[in-house]
Amino acid sequence: MNDALNVRLEHELRIIPDFPKPGIRFRDITLLLANASLMREVIDAMSQPFAKRDVSHVVGVEARGFLFGVSIALQLNASFVPARKPGKLPAATVRESFALEYGRDALEMHTDALRHDSRVLVVDDILATGGTIAAACRLVERVGARVVGVSVLGAIAGLCEPGVLAGRDVRALVSL
Amino acid sequence: MNDALNVRLEHELRIIPDFPKPGIRFRDITLLLANASLMREVIDAMSQPFAKRDVSHVVGVEARGFLFGVSIALQLNASFVPARKPGKLPAATVRESFALEYGRDALEMHTDALRHDSRVLVVDDILATGGTIAAACRLVERVGARVVGVSVLGAIAGLCEPGVLAGRDVRALVSL
Repeated sequence: MNDALNVRLEHELRIIPDFPKPGIRFRDITLLLANASLMREVIDAMSQPFAKRDVSHVVGVEARGFLFGVSIALQLNASFVPARKPGKLPAATVRESFALEYGRDALEMHTDALRHDSRVLVVDDILATGGTIAAACRLVERVGARVVGVSVLGAIAGLCEPGVLAGRDVRALVSL
Repeated sequence: MNDALNVRLEHELRIIPDFPKPGIRFRDITLLLANASLMREVIDAMSQPFAKRDVSHVVGVEARGFLFGVSIALQLNASFVPARKPGKLPAATVRESFALEYGRDALEMHTDALRHDSRVLVVDDILATGGTIAAACRLVERVGARVVGVSVLGAIAGLCEPGVLAGRDVRALVSL
């Protein structure tokens, strides 16, 4: 972990108070996306811990995980696999649901996207409660493949529910 | 345009009949996303026509435009700007609505994402009626910036409504 990158990232991830509802301090990634040289460093840094882990596939979580996942897959010379909101993927899928603050949501992945010997890195932007990322990990394991690790831009301290990502190799560039 | 790339792309963009509804022949991009070396060629080929056009910003249309737009922005050394579904962007936005087969949808962009002197490339995966991409172009022009061109993976022949992208420099790697 590069301290200078950490400091610059904290500066670029501006806080928008009360979005999407009162009491939430939303971390906006759009200033980072606008900074091509910083984005290059971020893609490098999110890939680097898994560079020697024989990652065959990167699963990116819709929609913001797509922004980082494709470039990380190209860097690792791996296949990119989208984990999408229900009803978006056209071929046969597996589905995992997860809890939101109110209600539930779900992610789907193509059943034929992974093989039994696939070694998968799960990518998203911000880790909060961990529910979405845990569902993405379960999708990978549902089709018999292995989750090598999880790479996120940032993790919000104290929000991830105990046990939800237990035993996973989770890497975050910055703690928020 | 590389003929060999064109042929391989047509092979990888498998047709899923009757998705998302009867009569639609959906072009699935997930086999392409799984092919890292072909993805690298695609990103190069989608960027190349605009490499000498001083593109300062790439606007990617949610969600599948994100899969190509970030890598194209990095290749062009440009800022990436997401055009998102309503309610997803946390700061002040402009909005443009557009017609779907039934009903309407809209795209939003942060008001401060572009400047008056920005030179913008709009990126998406597949060009069909052109309504979504035209809305993304209007967002760019609403904030006073200039659309240099539009780069898509594929264009479905005969579907783009006359005039909707008139005068735009639209490049597609493959005609579907």
